Amino acid sequence: MKILLVGATGGMGKTVTELCENSKDFKIVAGIGIGSGERLSYPLYQNFEDIKEKVDIILDFSHHSLIGSILNYTKEEQKPLVIATTGHTAEEIEKINKASEELPIFFTGNMSIGINILLAVVENLSKGLFDFDIEIIEKHHNLKKDSPSGTAKMLFDAANKGRGNELVEKDGREGTNLSREKSEVGVHAIRGGTIVGEHTVLFAGLDETIEITHRAQSKKVFGAGALKACSFIINQSKGLYDMKDILNF
Amino acid sequence: MKILLVGATGGMGKTVTELCENSKDFKIVAGIGIGSGERLSYPLYQNFEDIKEKVDIILDFSHHSLIGSILNYTKEEQKPLVIATTGHTAEEIEKINKASEELPIFFTGNMSIGINILLAVVENLSKGLFDFDIEIIEKHHNLKKDSPSGTAKMLFDAANKGRGNELVEKDGREGTNLSREKSEVGVHAIRGGTIVGEHTVLFAGLDETIEITHRAQSKKVFGAGALKACSFIINQSKGLYDMKDILNF
Amino acid sequence: MKILLVGATGGMGKTVTELCENSKDFKIVAGIGIGSGERLSYPLYQNFEDIKEKVDIILDFSHHSLIGSILNYTKEEQKPLVIATTGHTAEEIEKINKASEELPIFFTGNMSIGINILLAVVENLSKGLFDFDIEIIEKHHNLKKDSPSGTAKMLFDAANKGRGNELVEKDGREGTNLSREKSEVGVHAIRGGTIVGEHTVLFAGLDETIEITHRAQSKKVFGAGALKACSFIINQSKGLYDMKDILNF
Amino acid sequence: MKILLVGATGGMGKTVTELCENSKDFKIVAGIGIGSGERLSYPLYQNFEDIKEKVDIILDFSHHSLIGSILNYTKEEQKPLVIATTGHTAEEIEKINKASEELPIFFTGNMSIGINILLAVVENLSKGLFDFDIEIIEKHHNLKKDSPSGTAKMLFDAANKGRGNELVEKDGREGTNLSREKSEVGVHAIRGGTIVGEHTVLFAGLDETIEITHRAQSKKVFGAGALKACSFIINQSKGLYDMKDILNF
Repeated sequence: MKILLVGATGGMGKTVTELCENSKDFKIVAGIGIGSGERLSYPLYQNFEDIKEKVDIILDFSHHSLIGSILNYTKEEQKPLVIATTGHTAEEIEKINKASEELPIFFTGNMSIGINILLAVVENLSKGLFDFDIEIIEKHHNLKKDSPSGTAKMLFDAANKGRGNELVEKDGREGTNLSREKSEVGVHAIRGGTIVGEHTVLFAGLDETIEITHRAQSKKVFGAGALKACSFIINQSKGLYDMKDILNF
Repeated sequence: MKILLVGATGGMGKTVTELCENSKDFKIVAGIGIGSGERLSYPLYQNFEDIKEKVDIILDFSHHSLIGSILNYTKEEQKPLVIATTGHTAEEIEKINKASEELPIFFTGNMSIGINILLAVVENLSKGLFDFDIEIIEKHHNLKKDSPSGTAKMLFDAANKGRGNELVEKDGREGTNLSREKSEVGVHAIRGGTIVGEHTVLFAGLDETIEITHRAQSKKVFGAGALKACSFIINQSKGLYDMKDILNF
Repeated sequence: MKILLVGATGGMGKTVTELCENSKDFKIVAGIGIGSGERLSYPLYQNFEDIKEKVDIILDFSHHSLIGSILNYTKEEQKPLVIATTGHTAEEIEKINKASEELPIFFTGNMSIGINILLAVVENLSKGLFDFDIEIIEKHHNLKKDSPSGTAKMLFDAANKGRGNELVEKDGREGTNLSREKSEVGVHAIRGGTIVGEHTVLFAGLDETIEITHRAQSKKVFGAGALKACSFIINQSKGLYDMKDILNF
Repeated sequence: MKILLVGATGGMGKTVTELCENSKDFKIVAGIGIGSGERLSYPLYQNFEDIKEKVDIILDFSHHSLIGSILNYTKEEQKPLVIATTGHTAEEIEKINKASEELPIFFTGNMSIGINILLAVVENLSKGLFDFDIEIIEKHHNLKKDSPSGTAKMLFDAANKGRGNELVEKDGREGTNLSREKSEVGVHAIRGGTIVGEHTVLFAGLDETIEITHRAQSKKVFGAGALKACSFIINQSKGLYDMKDILNF
């Protein structure tokens, strides 16, 4: 599969490049990115119109603000697109939806297989353990700017769905005369060192608890998930897809 | 609900007695057990024929070998039965099956709500994370005689079911030139202190893991589960039931 | 050893009573407490002046506000005192200090052996892993009123001591453009179910972490620690003692 | 600091090379290793006699069987040596000891700062929690050949030292009528996925546990530790050193 990698010189771009170098199935034939690209095994372009190579698929690990030009190129080439960036505005999402009426587009908030399965399980557990208290704990490196993490919020949403949307997120606790509401879900953001990403959902009942933890050891997890998405979408017709469509779950 | 508690003076018998003393819904009106029963709030009998009280339900926390006389009493009284003991022989199980053609009987290998939900989740995860390695770790107090625990074996069975029965249990690892088979599931029995019971299933993939842990803090968990089973079965017609029938999972 | 148990009818009082009933070394000969005490194996008094029994030691599991009358009785009888309550005012602490010039008094913020050893270890780790980030996570039942727990604060103090008092406690995190200060120690209070008490200190460095967790399974831990303190102090001369004096650590 | 890296083309050699590329303090000026070394930023040699560069220090991440020629080169150049390989025979260790009478040599079983601090803490905990049961659990990737890991054995030795060498290692448990000896330390080897390395020591007492876990997220941990050893030993006189000499612990 011949891939155009958008965002080739960013952190995730490098990770995907490395994964493809060790793979028989995936070959990056061109990249869009900043810098000289001198150590790369494929040509690096600044603009889509300069690309000379034929590609089978476009993989986006750049920045949400580039989605306009990515979609233009995708439409011109009539090739499928995998979007692995996050943070899109409502307007940008609208554009993605529109484009998916014409082309197969894969779009997800988290490319890790594990996290996506975790989301499904948490919704189920939240429903099944209906009288257990729920708390969410996430751990990331000390440079992360946003707390709690986007994935922690997705986990809250999953738990909330399992309880008929009656839960309320609560970020942190401090005080001497607090009472925990039944609907309350404490969300706790731990920051330290170079932790790649750890998410735990705790269900606590009468003298028993169930705790489920996802731990990412490197960014490869997200790269591997994105390549799985490529393999999947290349055989699909127009429409909008996400991880749920891949997982036999 | 008026309960006859079989095995009233054993460890679980005491726990159930305590739970019922603090409950409006459940009242033990008679017990079968060894000892004088002088501190009990209900009469204690040695034999079923001596029981004078009217009961709504029979709850068995005694020993699997007593199942014959329990079933006889249950049939005479035409009342539902909850079996919370384990270790029944094939012959005894046959008797239980037979009796369930006439009466509502609840029968499960583990009375904890959490463990039963864990079993369902593990089967799903095993199926969904189809290329992840699976390992099971359980922790119990230092007096436990059997390793791995019965519940660990139930968890292995659940994982195995999710993979089309292609997995093989492996208890412990030691050596200098080992290779882990893909089908292998390491099962590890940790023993120490007074740990009531902790079961973890680990799913390990490429740079990511999912770990799910159930922790029982006291035996109340099993007593509370048994009382939930009582509430459930009192409204059922004849047949054999287990935890899956209670859980909306 | 003949014990006068102050606070005999509270939660911890019941736990200590049970521990002593199963012990050859410790015998409660009288209690101070509220209620009729009809199920107790020893007489229960409302006032110290009514006590007729001879005691070897006074064990206090009542409320910090009672310390005045406890100290008066202790001085009259000239017996050692173990204080297992917390929350004393500066004035009350002053009284305790004064009394310890005359009598052996044991006084600690946490009766668990494990927590006291944890405090010492955390101070050492904080010093040794001098460039690691530190975060504290504690879990308790959903009825606990104060967050973070007193023990979490003790753990912060221990970590802080190991770093020359340059650390700053931070309770919870929420925001989109946060930066973690090197001196910052996140303290996170998880609440749910009936969790007795779990405290974790995380040290996170470059691609490695050390995490140390203490887990209490029941209140027996605190009762057993208090009885160890009784065994210790009965052989001491006047002075103020705490867990550090017992532990060979 | 100008480094000669022995074992430059192995897994750890690559990791160290990457760390040095991003460092101002460390510069690899020559490597010994197999392969063409065409992508390397320094010349790669097959034999020590071919090296033309002047070096300040020798860092060994190769194979224990090469220690003879490494020591010869070290003696000729009269430069300090850091040995980061393991598995040396008694005869090889004898040679290292001998050479350390003439030159500063750093030699350790594990280059991670965290693991070395863990070893010290485990010895202390084992001594302090003298009546707690101890169990060791380690997790590694599914290609690891030896179980339990060398580090798990080092942890057992540390725990054993804290108890006056009265403990016995037990690898795995299986059976129906087992009894846990007080001196027994279960050591459990979990294998799965690409886990870099996780080691836990559990101390289990009456209704409380302490669990301490070290988790390595990448091999950088071992590379960073080796570079710390380089910084340390370059200022030492002849003698044999290990991590204890670096840590202020």
